[in-house]
Amino acid sequence: MAETRTTYFSNIPEIAYEGPQSSNPYAFKYYNPEEKVGGKTMEEQLRFSVAYWHTLTQDASDPFGAGTAQRPWDHYSGMDLAKARVEAAFEFIDKIKAPFFCFHDIDIAPEGDTLRETNQNLDTIVAMIKDYMKSSDTKLLWNTANMFTHPRFVSGAGTSSNADVFAHAAAKVKKGLETGKELGAENYVFWGGREGYESLLNTDMKLELDNLASFYHMAIDYSKEIGFNPQFLIEPKPKEPTTHQYDFDVATATSFLYQYGLQDHFKFNIEANHATLAGHTFEHELRTARISGMLGSVDANQGDPLLGWDTDEFPTDLYSAVLAMYEILKNDGLGRGGLNFDAKIRRGSFKPEDLFYSHIAGMDSFAVGLKVAQKMIDDRFFESIVDKRYETFNDGIGKKIREGTTSFAELEAYALDQKQIDHASGHLERIKAGINQYILSVNFL
Amino acid sequence: MAETRTTYFSNIPEIAYEGPQSSNPYAFKYYNPEEKVGGKTMEEQLRFSVAYWHTLTQDASDPFGAGTAQRPWDHYSGMDLAKARVEAAFEFIDKIKAPFFCFHDIDIAPEGDTLRETNQNLDTIVAMIKDYMKSSDTKLLWNTANMFTHPRFVSGAGTSSNADVFAHAAAKVKKGLETGKELGAENYVFWGGREGYESLLNTDMKLELDNLASFYHMAIDYSKEIGFNPQFLIEPKPKEPTTHQYDFDVATATSFLYQYGLQDHFKFNIEANHATLAGHTFEHELRTARISGMLGSVDANQGDPLLGWDTDEFPTDLYSAVLAMYEILKNDGLGRGGLNFDAKIRRGSFKPEDLFYSHIAGMDSFAVGLKVAQKMIDDRFFESIVDKRYETFNDGIGKKIREGTTSFAELEAYALDQKQIDHASGHLERIKAGINQYILSVNFL
Amino acid sequence: MAETRTTYFSNIPEIAYEGPQSSNPYAFKYYNPEEKVGGKTMEEQLRFSVAYWHTLTQDASDPFGAGTAQRPWDHYSGMDLAKARVEAAFEFIDKIKAPFFCFHDIDIAPEGDTLRETNQNLDTIVAMIKDYMKSSDTKLLWNTANMFTHPRFVSGAGTSSNADVFAHAAAKVKKGLETGKELGAENYVFWGGREGYESLLNTDMKLELDNLASFYHMAIDYSKEIGFNPQFLIEPKPKEPTTHQYDFDVATATSFLYQYGLQDHFKFNIEANHATLAGHTFEHELRTARISGMLGSVDANQGDPLLGWDTDEFPTDLYSAVLAMYEILKNDGLGRGGLNFDAKIRRGSFKPEDLFYSHIAGMDSFAVGLKVAQKMIDDRFFESIVDKRYETFNDGIGKKIREGTTSFAELEAYALDQKQIDHASGHLERIKAGINQYILSVNFL
Amino acid sequence: MAETRTTYFSNIPEIAYEGPQSSNPYAFKYYNPEEKVGGKTMEEQLRFSVAYWHTLTQDASDPFGAGTAQRPWDHYSGMDLAKARVEAAFEFIDKIKAPFFCFHDIDIAPEGDTLRETNQNLDTIVAMIKDYMKSSDTKLLWNTANMFTHPRFVSGAGTSSNADVFAHAAAKVKKGLETGKELGAENYVFWGGREGYESLLNTDMKLELDNLASFYHMAIDYSKEIGFNPQFLIEPKPKEPTTHQYDFDVATATSFLYQYGLQDHFKFNIEANHATLAGHTFEHELRTARISGMLGSVDANQGDPLLGWDTDEFPTDLYSAVLAMYEILKNDGLGRGGLNFDAKIRRGSFKPEDLFYSHIAGMDSFAVGLKVAQKMIDDRFFESIVDKRYETFNDGIGKKIREGTTSFAELEAYALDQKQIDHASGHLERIKAGINQYILSVNFL
Repeated sequence: MAETRTTYFSNIPEIAYEGPQSSNPYAFKYYNPEEKVGGKTMEEQLRFSVAYWHTLTQDASDPFGAGTAQRPWDHYSGMDLAKARVEAAFEFIDKIKAPFFCFHDIDIAPEGDTLRETNQNLDTIVAMIKDYMKSSDTKLLWNTANMFTHPRFVSGAGTSSNADVFAHAAAKVKKGLETGKELGAENYVFWGGREGYESLLNTDMKLELDNLASFYHMAIDYSKEIGFNPQFLIEPKPKEPTTHQYDFDVATATSFLYQYGLQDHFKFNIEANHATLAGHTFEHELRTARISGMLGSVDANQGDPLLGWDTDEFPTDLYSAVLAMYEILKNDGLGRGGLNFDAKIRRGSFKPEDLFYSHIAGMDSFAVGLKVAQKMIDDRFFESIVDKRYETFNDGIGKKIREGTTSFAELEAYALDQKQIDHASGHLERIKAGINQYILSVNFL
Repeated sequence: MAETRTTYFSNIPEIAYEGPQSSNPYAFKYYNPEEKVGGKTMEEQLRFSVAYWHTLTQDASDPFGAGTAQRPWDHYSGMDLAKARVEAAFEFIDKIKAPFFCFHDIDIAPEGDTLRETNQNLDTIVAMIKDYMKSSDTKLLWNTANMFTHPRFVSGAGTSSNADVFAHAAAKVKKGLETGKELGAENYVFWGGREGYESLLNTDMKLELDNLASFYHMAIDYSKEIGFNPQFLIEPKPKEPTTHQYDFDVATATSFLYQYGLQDHFKFNIEANHATLAGHTFEHELRTARISGMLGSVDANQGDPLLGWDTDEFPTDLYSAVLAMYEILKNDGLGRGGLNFDAKIRRGSFKPEDLFYSHIAGMDSFAVGLKVAQKMIDDRFFESIVDKRYETFNDGIGKKIREGTTSFAELEAYALDQKQIDHASGHLERIKAGINQYILSVNFL
Repeated sequence: MAETRTTYFSNIPEIAYEGPQSSNPYAFKYYNPEEKVGGKTMEEQLRFSVAYWHTLTQDASDPFGAGTAQRPWDHYSGMDLAKARVEAAFEFIDKIKAPFFCFHDIDIAPEGDTLRETNQNLDTIVAMIKDYMKSSDTKLLWNTANMFTHPRFVSGAGTSSNADVFAHAAAKVKKGLETGKELGAENYVFWGGREGYESLLNTDMKLELDNLASFYHMAIDYSKEIGFNPQFLIEPKPKEPTTHQYDFDVATATSFLYQYGLQDHFKFNIEANHATLAGHTFEHELRTARISGMLGSVDANQGDPLLGWDTDEFPTDLYSAVLAMYEILKNDGLGRGGLNFDAKIRRGSFKPEDLFYSHIAGMDSFAVGLKVAQKMIDDRFFESIVDKRYETFNDGIGKKIREGTTSFAELEAYALDQKQIDHASGHLERIKAGINQYILSVNFL
Repeated sequence: MAETRTTYFSNIPEIAYEGPQSSNPYAFKYYNPEEKVGGKTMEEQLRFSVAYWHTLTQDASDPFGAGTAQRPWDHYSGMDLAKARVEAAFEFIDKIKAPFFCFHDIDIAPEGDTLRETNQNLDTIVAMIKDYMKSSDTKLLWNTANMFTHPRFVSGAGTSSNADVFAHAAAKVKKGLETGKELGAENYVFWGGREGYESLLNTDMKLELDNLASFYHMAIDYSKEIGFNPQFLIEPKPKEPTTHQYDFDVATATSFLYQYGLQDHFKFNIEANHATLAGHTFEHELRTARISGMLGSVDANQGDPLLGWDTDEFPTDLYSAVLAMYEILKNDGLGRGGLNFDAKIRRGSFKPEDLFYSHIAGMDSFAVGLKVAQKMIDDRFFESIVDKRYETFNDGIGKKIREGTTSFAELEAYALDQKQIDHASGHLERIKAGINQYILSVNFL
């Protein structure tokens, strides 16, 4: 069947690994899918995913300007456009060798006048995607419902000030769960871009949070009802579009989940640029989720630290890739999650080939990250530093503290006449120099 | 006894209320302690507290310069300085008519070579303070242990990488609880300025958080043991001095408390400038704590939104004061908490009289805030807006959502063929104009 | 002729002054056009202007969602829409009593397939506007060319990497100058939203700046050629849409003007939210321009200090309005400039009446600002503070310094054996309390 | 003479180059002083300088805590401490092989009760340094006067509100120029940490700027008078300690210099962390200065993009080092300037050996930066991208624009009927991937 498909990237070859010395822009320099790192292939470790919205749908517009993206399927509209995008998506995914992809409902099919019509459009395209998946190696990492673009979501979805909107949102997620089941999705993601408030001056925050918790409980119930068992993921973001978003960061969302008894039903989908907008490093968010057993999946991108909005750049910062892969490897991988490129080409990178260049850039960066992080783990680089730094907790009073078998009275007796405490230096500059050495030797790994 | 005390502010009179037209810099223009607002006196509603560290101890130094503060007790040192400060403190507190004060251990007494010696110094000064409290109307709002200034706390206290430091910190808090009991403190505060990490590269975050939870459990146990029952407060701050602090904001600390089963033992001490450093408004943090039943006390100050560090300015922004007092009044007041001026005079405001000017500025601002907020509550200004905006949740499908008696299937049936949803405008600009009208009419209240 | 026009705001009355106690949402509470403040009417002092793009054209979309604005002229398209907007514009401007308005070329007329067609569209609408101006009291404060929305401007206009774009931009400004002449504009504004770069990695910064200077020189030449003498204004903004914009702030643009010999041909159009994005207060930018003799006009709005992008809120912060009006009054007013509401209704304020509410909010705020600032000037509030603080420069060595008649040798001789320097406190907290008193007494002015 | 000196780092060897595979913490892995890159030795290209204040003087205190630094000369005080620091400084500089060092006056000698006494202390230490320089290869890159630490500078130095402070500051700079001459300094630096204002509310900005210009003119005059001809450098910083600093960034300082006719007398000393605090990249500031012919010297460090204050970290970010070295190489090097490590060890890196680790980390990072940048220049990596991107300016209408020989009329004629403009993609993602390839191949250069 594939032979009869329209091609959109006919001048672009399948992307293959050629090694660090290659100057072929259509080749991987570090990502070698079959190469084993840490006992698994790079493909298994990295679980890359193409984001349908950025790659197939977005037009590179910004708040001050119209779209610049030049896409070979731009002349279509309506359902024809939706179908053309499916064709282009599978051609792209297959050429770039991505084992997964992700989408929002409205990325793949246009909205109708009513939800019933929208769902009919979805049914058509979901069937087409299911058919295309038969002849492709790619799988659905996750799907979700877009509940922020349409004007009806002006005040949120599950936290809308309008009950009709809540109902509409619930119906969309119901359909989203059915779609996920139909296509065998591994996860279902909630990103609540408008679940929050612009100003407290006209907001009933408690009502909104109560409603959001009900929304999640109903989603879990319905999922069970239809025998669909995805990993549920919350994707935190602190602001934009809404001024104050309820899922500010991992810790804030964890607090919400605990307060509403939902903590056992969710993990997190962590995005680098959302972390930095919240004032954290990417690795902070990954670590926070990991040590709570809630690291589920990753939206791989990067921000511009000098800008206060979500730039969703393709990830090329090797420091960030190394530290992210370290957290992921220490988590025993991402399980059912993956590394989804929630990243968009720059407005000035408007040519179709830039879609390939940017994914290659991101995949190579995380391949470097994987190899370097695995080498550091093999060498116990960080582990040695930490073991040494916390060694006083291994015996004596430290061991008692660690085991929770002491008291303020005992600790006071221990401390009362102590003259001087010897500290070990944190040696942060030396550690950073060491990381540089590791990264710069990746071509020897 | 008071007549034999040394005076430090002899040229400054007791501060009295003179009304909005007064041009006397040593008079309140809006704060009238006996005036009733909302059924209680302003003194009862506002529960102002003087912060010992900013008013008696700090020297107005900054990272690039030596202290500029001119204090009449500067020529003393050691325990003589500590005693002079007590004398000056009570003179100041009585003249400014503050019903409360607060301190860290090392604000009131110098450290010795060992904790034993430090505690002996504390005992002397605590006895002196207790004696002075007999002839003053002021009470101790809260005390705490400073666990961030001494070099031993370079890597934290309860989260130190060194067990000896944990023990030392525990002994300090033990003494702090005894001090609180001795002086009848209403609350005990934990601000963990170094409970966090500079870099994940050498940090065992899970061990540190586990230890911190043990620390809190032991504090609660010891408090019970000695029959002291303060309200325990955590004061969130996201960064500074430590790059990443564990008590980032109210939500983050709530997540921690829940994960370690501590949620019933703590409320929050919320500081305006800490809120803004975390990317929130002051009122966001107050609301977040209030709707979780965890709004305990307030550190009243303000930051400079253009600066990325804690400037701890005296609060003069009337918008902020109005919205803060609205949250506090909706909380039925602060209970055992208060409005503590965790605020320091600017480095350029180095004269003793500036201590009075700045407290008057802050007290008058919150007095305006109280009067305006109470009037808005009496008029149901915000309540009317919210009632109208969320009215679809009062019956029909909205009521079912609110009561948790519906399902995705029912909601889908409701939404599937709906064509258009009518939204009410949020009218934010009109609301803001309304608030201006309220504030500008305060002189008529 | 007016009687035959379509009306779009038929349910909304002309806005009149009713005073601070009014609860009529369609009335001014502080802005009384005929009231004299500082020897001129408020209308003369404030010179308010309606921004065509925000009020007539924008749809309240954001990067994550479609427009929400409900406009009675939405059913039109193309030139019919353009004409309907002119009708609505004059109805709005007349009802809100704005003495001025402003526009970009594409706000008033749609673009054609070529610039020739675009210009023909413009000619039609400009003629219509000119006709409507005959029966209205409003005048054109300024017009400009939009050189950031169309994809051709992806890399800038005068700083584009493509010479054809430079040419296109030049032709648009040529037409803009002709339009300004035709309609009697007081000023011509350059806001270079894409004059800057996203990344230095592919940018020739020097070439771009050289070209921009040539562009400005040609604009000045052409303006002279056609006998049109507007005040030329540069509107600084540091970022957004472009990551690094060349007109970062007043000082940066001043540096550029001096380096290219353009400093005598331009003043600045200063926007509050652009100032804060650059890390400055609004009043800092106003002062910087004022003391260089380059304060030309003002884009009156405000930002959200917790957000890193341009929110363009209607100005309601009274502190900001007071300090801005202080700078403007000290500048002897804005001359040919004005206070243009470069402010947009919130996405949640989508009803037509919100356009009125928001302008009333902004006009009332600046009216309060004007009255308070004038009163402070009459009382020499700030002047007394400054006179006292800098008094050492009035005689002796200070006078010599001020007059530039001393030397390092003389100053060393003066300083070498001096023991102590007496400083006067800056008393900032007292000053802030004083400002609160002034603002809260505005109802008595 | 060297053999009789006290040693402070006796357990630390001279630092030598051992190559990228070395695991010796006391060895350079990339910095090989004699290795030629771009036709000069690395020592000549990089011109590293040790900052006396961070390495010899600072104690690793922060606003919330006392110093943690453990220094073998801590037991001294007064002039003995000053002398011990000179001994330690030369031992350190010689072991780390730094060709330059820098200092503020009060870094090297304690202040006396009067400036006369301070100058006498300076004379003693300057003579000692001069003597030590005879047996060392190091030279003085620059010196300066500290005019921000002492309380007298609470309101600035050349911009103080007090004339006596201006005089005192002038006398200090006079002495600084004499010191520079005595020790053969290459440059004289002005960093005005308190030249700015905290609040406009009590500030006469115009008077302060006028005075600052007079100050600079007198400095130039005096320098000529004594026959000392250093390169004068201004070091921009936007804020901290002062809220609004007059030398916000390169462009702001350039504007000031032009407005006061000082532009031919100054170049800039550009610090990475100051650039980021101003909202710029390091390379933006370097480029801005370079294309104005004003790139003089560099303070090599890095900031934490998540923190709003100057962290002055040792530079280890290789991306930043590469782009900085690219600008420097395109500037034909730094001339009389150098790469000064205005960087401090973290508070947790308090051991003496951390001074070595941190300098090695910084020197190796810039050595990588140099090698990679030179290779990119040899390959015309950036130049090819830019040549292609701007090629339309090479002939036709583009050439006329570039040469300034066209007009709005001609450009309009060119553009009026043009249908479509072809743009070349900026390919930013591909460029970033290319940079990663270059960096990761440094071990092969």
